Amino acid sequence: MEDKLDFRLNDTAKDGIRRGQIVTPHGVVKTPAFVPDATYGAVRLLSVNDLENIGIPMVLGNSYHLWLRPGLDLIRQHAGLQDFMNWHKPLLTDSGGYQVYSLVYEKKMGRVVDDGIEFRDHLTGDKYFLTPEQAIENQLTINSDVLVVLDYPVSPDANDTDNEYSVQRTTKWAKRCRIAFDNDSRSEGKLLVAVIQGANSKELRKQSYEELAEIGFDGYAFGGHPENDDIVEYTVGLIPKEKLRYMMGSGVPSDIEKYTKMGWDLFDCVIPTRNARHGLLYTSQGDVRITNSKYQLDKSPVDIDCDCELCTTYTRAYLHHLFRVKEQLGPRLASIHNLRFYVRMMLRLQVNYGS
Amino acid sequence: MEDKLDFRLNDTAKDGIRRGQIVTPHGVVKTPAFVPDATYGAVRLLSVNDLENIGIPMVLGNSYHLWLRPGLDLIRQHAGLQDFMNWHKPLLTDSGGYQVYSLVYEKKMGRVVDDGIEFRDHLTGDKYFLTPEQAIENQLTINSDVLVVLDYPVSPDANDTDNEYSVQRTTKWAKRCRIAFDNDSRSEGKLLVAVIQGANSKELRKQSYEELAEIGFDGYAFGGHPENDDIVEYTVGLIPKEKLRYMMGSGVPSDIEKYTKMGWDLFDCVIPTRNARHGLLYTSQGDVRITNSKYQLDKSPVDIDCDCELCTTYTRAYLHHLFRVKEQLGPRLASIHNLRFYVRMMLRLQVNYGS
Repeated sequence: MEDKLDFRLNDTAKDGIRRGQIVTPHGVVKTPAFVPDATYGAVRLLSVNDLENIGIPMVLGNSYHLWLRPGLDLIRQHAGLQDFMNWHKPLLTDSGGYQVYSLVYEKKMGRVVDDGIEFRDHLTGDKYFLTPEQAIENQLTINSDVLVVLDYPVSPDANDTDNEYSVQRTTKWAKRCRIAFDNDSRSEGKLLVAVIQGANSKELRKQSYEELAEIGFDGYAFGGHPENDDIVEYTVGLIPKEKLRYMMGSGVPSDIEKYTKMGWDLFDCVIPTRNARHGLLYTSQGDVRITNSKYQLDKSPVDIDCDCELCTTYTRAYLHHLFRVKEQLGPRLASIHNLRFYVRMMLRLQVNYGS
Repeated sequence: MEDKLDFRLNDTAKDGIRRGQIVTPHGVVKTPAFVPDATYGAVRLLSVNDLENIGIPMVLGNSYHLWLRPGLDLIRQHAGLQDFMNWHKPLLTDSGGYQVYSLVYEKKMGRVVDDGIEFRDHLTGDKYFLTPEQAIENQLTINSDVLVVLDYPVSPDANDTDNEYSVQRTTKWAKRCRIAFDNDSRSEGKLLVAVIQGANSKELRKQSYEELAEIGFDGYAFGGHPENDDIVEYTVGLIPKEKLRYMMGSGVPSDIEKYTKMGWDLFDCVIPTRNARHGLLYTSQGDVRITNSKYQLDKSPVDIDCDCELCTTYTRAYLHHLFRVKEQLGPRLASIHNLRFYVRMMLRLQVNYGS
């Protein structure tokens, strides 16, 4: 078992939190785990040295962005995103679907057909076609450790027919992803995660999970926006305990704590870094909006309990000043702080204080 | 002598380069020295940890910017800029004149009177009055180690009458700075540098130096834009060897090498960081414009001979990509590289290979 690439559940505490590990060729990630987004092959403003110092265990590469820029050729020449960004720890990727659907539905720059999604690069106008096979090709070229199938989400206000169709197409595309993945020798030792659709309908979520489980995957993710806790909890309950449970794109610290107690293992989100860039910092004493004028003369650290570069080096007054004069060191230090806050939160959640 | 704050000349090599040291309460700066600009209390994109890692010996605080934002009150509360930005090595400041004259002459937002310069903050519209006494007050509050007097430069196309007047007023204001400095107990152990004006006229430069020398200063700086090497070399020759010779606001690496051979000791410039942000990197093999498409597939480091975070971690292709997608990690890594290039250049210049 030790050598097999897999998700392994160690134990589940009374509070419902599962302690496990994702074993990958690039190392082991303890769960529950939080993964920041390295959209263009970099977590905004941070180098890989910064990520190491913060204690980040894994990063997420956006396969849509990387497919368009710098493109697969260059990533191939670097033998994957890991070499390109010089990050030699585990790597998670998305399918690219989320960004492409935004282009199609919000910017009207493409259309969904039976085989995939046609769209144009909004910068160059070049045509692309994201199929299930292409989604796997992109992620294997990036050399991801944990890949996600191309799914077919619908908007939150979709009707029952749309939702049923979303489940059916998601199953069909997941099957094609599974085949493409299995037929490619580069998939050796990697995990493939399927996405459960079905909006707010428990029947559809169940149907979606069962159709996917029949194909068989290493993990399952929650697809679509979590409208209420009930559907999120119901969905996680469908996934057997030996499988990785991935809550995509969530969320704020309180959500992460809540979802880990439901039994979700893996999280990625732009929230900590995006909020940091806008001056919202998470601390052990609650949120700090550093642009607020009450911090102008505040000589205390942002978080007295934090060991990050910001909190051990600078005052709130200094960070307030950096944001006021729009000096990019401010967003950078805030990003370091928020990510360190998340890392320490996950370290606490990983310890079972009594099961 | 060991405890007296001063500039001390150790030796002068055959090539004309002077090796000395500036002894300050915050430590010794070996010369020739290059000092980056921490415009708003931060070298753009870099933390003090970064500056330590790069080996920066001293930074320059812009007293104009700091006077307006965050303002003297906050800096007083932090017991100086050093505490505010948590930089506990030597600090150099300018008089603020350069920025104020830009407001007056380019943006027509103020006027020069006999006592100083009246201007408005271009962001808030608030009125300010920069006098020689205020220039000293600002710099002593910032807690600078090396202060510069308020001078009166003229535009490069000024006529002889303007130039003579520039010399006279510069002397008058330098005298007032000297008095304000000497009458303030906070000046204990700090250096005061005067600025030699006189445009391209050797007669005026000589007159300016002699008038200033009669007042007496710890060092002398070259005022105005260096129009030709002859006037720069003539001016440095006026300054006695035991005094600090400060070439303000210059320059590119080749200029620094040239000016050190003339006998200048101290340099500050935004060039390495500004050029870095625009993708121009200095290397041991010449300039690299990283945005050039020829670097798109270049897997070599920016400079094979460099030991900075960029060159030891990433390829040219990766940096090219960061600039292409406008990821701010690019300008940050380039800034680290260019400053490290300057630090290593100064280290080489500080070694006397045979005198």
